[in-house]
Amino acid sequence: MKLVRFGPAGEEKPGLVDQDGRIRDLSGIVPDISGPVLGRRMLDELRGTALSSLPLAPDGARLGPCVGDVGNFIAVGLNFADHAAETGAPIPAEPILFNKAPSCIVGPNDTVVIPKASRKTDWEVELAIVIGERASYVHANEALDYVAGFCICHDVSEREFQLERGGTWSKGKGCPTFGPLGPWLVTADEVADVQKLGMWLTVNGETMQKGSTQTMIFTCAQLVSYISHFMILEPGDVITTGTPPGVGMALKPPRFLQHGDVVALGIEGLGEQRQTVMAFDEWTATVSRGAPTNP
Amino acid sequence: MKLVRFGPAGEEKPGLVDQDGRIRDLSGIVPDISGPVLGRRMLDELRGTALSSLPLAPDGARLGPCVGDVGNFIAVGLNFADHAAETGAPIPAEPILFNKAPSCIVGPNDTVVIPKASRKTDWEVELAIVIGERASYVHANEALDYVAGFCICHDVSEREFQLERGGTWSKGKGCPTFGPLGPWLVTADEVADVQKLGMWLTVNGETMQKGSTQTMIFTCAQLVSYISHFMILEPGDVITTGTPPGVGMALKPPRFLQHGDVVALGIEGLGEQRQTVMAFDEWTATVSRGAPTNP
Repeated sequence: MKLVRFGPAGEEKPGLVDQDGRIRDLSGIVPDISGPVLGRRMLDELRGTALSSLPLAPDGARLGPCVGDVGNFIAVGLNFADHAAETGAPIPAEPILFNKAPSCIVGPNDTVVIPKASRKTDWEVELAIVIGERASYVHANEALDYVAGFCICHDVSEREFQLERGGTWSKGKGCPTFGPLGPWLVTADEVADVQKLGMWLTVNGETMQKGSTQTMIFTCAQLVSYISHFMILEPGDVITTGTPPGVGMALKPPRFLQHGDVVALGIEGLGEQRQTVMAFDEWTATVSRGAPTNP
Repeated sequence: MKLVRFGPAGEEKPGLVDQDGRIRDLSGIVPDISGPVLGRRMLDELRGTALSSLPLAPDGARLGPCVGDVGNFIAVGLNFADHAAETGAPIPAEPILFNKAPSCIVGPNDTVVIPKASRKTDWEVELAIVIGERASYVHANEALDYVAGFCICHDVSEREFQLERGGTWSKGKGCPTFGPLGPWLVTADEVADVQKLGMWLTVNGETMQKGSTQTMIFTCAQLVSYISHFMILEPGDVITTGTPPGVGMALKPPRFLQHGDVVALGIEGLGEQRQTVMAFDEWTATVSRGAPTNP
């Protein structure tokens, strides 16, 4: 299944993409696409729903983030052998964990805002794992049983905040709009091999990142298992699993996002995202005029 | 007001401590003590409630964490000048931020469990800030307007996971039961000066930590302001603000928590917590027997 959330920001309804690619409104059946709905039992129930009897979402409805009410938004650093190499960092012996603030989560095609005083806002296409069942001390060979599905995460990153402001990376990872999720939450049964998915990202049509989940240092199963030994993973938690090479920081000279840039990104089988980048002041002015900043 | 949550874990009801120290059941008025209830308007409404007409909580009801549905559980590292000194770390030029997994949050007197394979589980008495209003790019001189109140947080920490497993501190900070919050959420209007509160922690009756919020490097107002420049703070988010000297890791020789230890901790005006420490295997056995592990 491809689960979605559609409608105005903060008022998204749950939906499901039907065979013809149209969004069916699930709000008569479940309150939201979020933790309580992501367990095996509820997903099986949704799978059995006769979609043709459900109302269609309005044409052109905005897509919200494909998971609502995310509790813990965990990120894994330097998890691609080729990306670790481009940043000059050694291959980590254990997964590097940090957090993105859940308040940074937006829809897949919403505006990405360059934070106030930012000079180094950068892109990162990532595969995100969405937890479906409570996971604590699980083995890697059963870890994917706890996963509801997968989606694209744009792990937008401010490099100066992340690396030059002291302490951990979280300062540069959770700024407002830094976490587009979606377009769909693709349930795990529809992803044949999550470690063999092509990934790409373009800026203004120019390919910047091109990679595959094949070069992950720690697989999705290993990550879920590993993290579950340090903290309980709850349904609706999201783990974004690291980025392949091609980030702006690693270019010579480095290149960062500017007002008006358009970023597109995709992962095989998980759809595509497309964001327009806005400077903070422009965005504030647009919002205060009451104009829509999202397509 | 002293707001509380009482009842079995996962089924807590909202409550308010009355003039006689008894808990009044607020569940007829608000669904929970959590984000949507913590804004100025709702708190003013609660303040106007005639408590004597509300039912009393059952005698001896368990106290749950005093905030429910915490979205972002942010922690500040090395924020006491005297604690930074004892760990040998330099005084940070900017606040050090890391995250505790929201799934580690428990009641103030619940069992603290030593994680599987842990050898260095340590204590930290801390003052936690509970956000009441959405805060983004706020100035320090208005930052406390966004705060609903304060509570005690026991920032239980596994030092090997935190410091020796690579990457950021989050691995040693979010293990199950590592975040006792409470007993009360004391609203900001009842805390005359949050930067002048005595703090203490004992292990088996022996004083280990004794300090004051006066030696914080960054004040609560500065922290809320600072963090709001990197991420949006949402109602119900919790910021725990660092610990004074006296942690086990800094003792010579170091001392860590053992099965059967009893930790008590308190902050002036914010009440006290008291936890029994259990080894992981003992705890698992107790839970699987169906016996209560919490007082």
